[in-house]
Amino acid sequence: MNREEALACVKQQLTEHRYIHTIGVMNTAIELAERFGADSKKAETAAIFHDYAKFRPKEEMKQIIIRENMPEHLLSYNPELWHAPVGAYLAEQEAGITDGEVLDAIRFHTSGRPDMTLLDKVIYVADYIEPGRKFPGVDDVRELAETDLNQALIQSLKNTMIFLMKKNQPVFPDTFATYNSLVSAN
Amino acid sequence: MNREEALACVKQQLTEHRYIHTIGVMNTAIELAERFGADSKKAETAAIFHDYAKFRPKEEMKQIIIRENMPEHLLSYNPELWHAPVGAYLAEQEAGITDGEVLDAIRFHTSGRPDMTLLDKVIYVADYIEPGRKFPGVDDVRELAETDLNQALIQSLKNTMIFLMKKNQPVFPDTFATYNSLVSAN
Repeated sequence: MNREEALACVKQQLTEHRYIHTIGVMNTAIELAERFGADSKKAETAAIFHDYAKFRPKEEMKQIIIRENMPEHLLSYNPELWHAPVGAYLAEQEAGITDGEVLDAIRFHTSGRPDMTLLDKVIYVADYIEPGRKFPGVDDVRELAETDLNQALIQSLKNTMIFLMKKNQPVFPDTFATYNSLVSAN
Repeated sequence: MNREEALACVKQQLTEHRYIHTIGVMNTAIELAERFGADSKKAETAAIFHDYAKFRPKEEMKQIIIRENMPEHLLSYNPELWHAPVGAYLAEQEAGITDGEVLDAIRFHTSGRPDMTLLDKVIYVADYIEPGRKFPGVDDVRELAETDLNQALIQSLKNTMIFLMKKNQPVFPDTFATYNSLVSAN
């Protein structure tokens, strides 16, 4: 599937706003892949499909998580996390994406995971800093991503966790474990 | 062992500064126990012994953690965490404290644990807010502890985790799990 076909495929799944976000993630992911030595074609594909399941009904996502034996503790945390693993599943089933690295980068683009691959990191950070993102702290992450992908990732994970903590919301354990694995490795 | 005997016993183990801190924790713990319905005698004993192992050499603590089959992942995190489980062990072995609830409150006074008991919470918060503590954010926790022990505990855990994250230091997983269990229960 070439870029145009892939974009046409996800466009049907997304709102206009989310499609523009996806284009931003695609461009940023290609840039980061070239900067840090990841496969830019895989980065393009993972970025295009990263939000494939974003607008599926919660009940459908829940049923897929249960039926496909995805980690059930997902269901105890924010449904905002569900579209990532469900998106990896549907990108394979419906859109025919078969590359395991690409599917993993989609699967872990919201939660992170300990020992993220280079491609996982590129997609996670691209999703955080694409030009349409405006939230507090994003410029610091953009600056770090000019030179150090790991530091950009650590900063974005911290921002996310501190944001949730300030609202007394639970933090998904894999996100926390991702942070710990990155700062322990430094 | 009465209060004077207990204090005399820990005084030998501590610096003058840490002994004064211990008196502060004791008074605060008794106050919190009375306010929130915990056993104030157990709170007194746990508070007196909470830092019993604080000045043991790291190597001795490490050997005790290994020999007594304490969770070995402790050794991958800040040695500052070690004196709590080692203190519970030594309070039993050397000072003859046998009450399981008191020993648990000593054991978890630095890390916390999911499903903390009322006594665990009293000791954790008393250690955080005793009058000698001066760090940023402590007054907010003191105010919360006037009326709501859980909110005081959540705030102190958040302060600790955010402090570590700002320094890019790992956070002990049990501390994070304690936070998640408390905010999920609310």
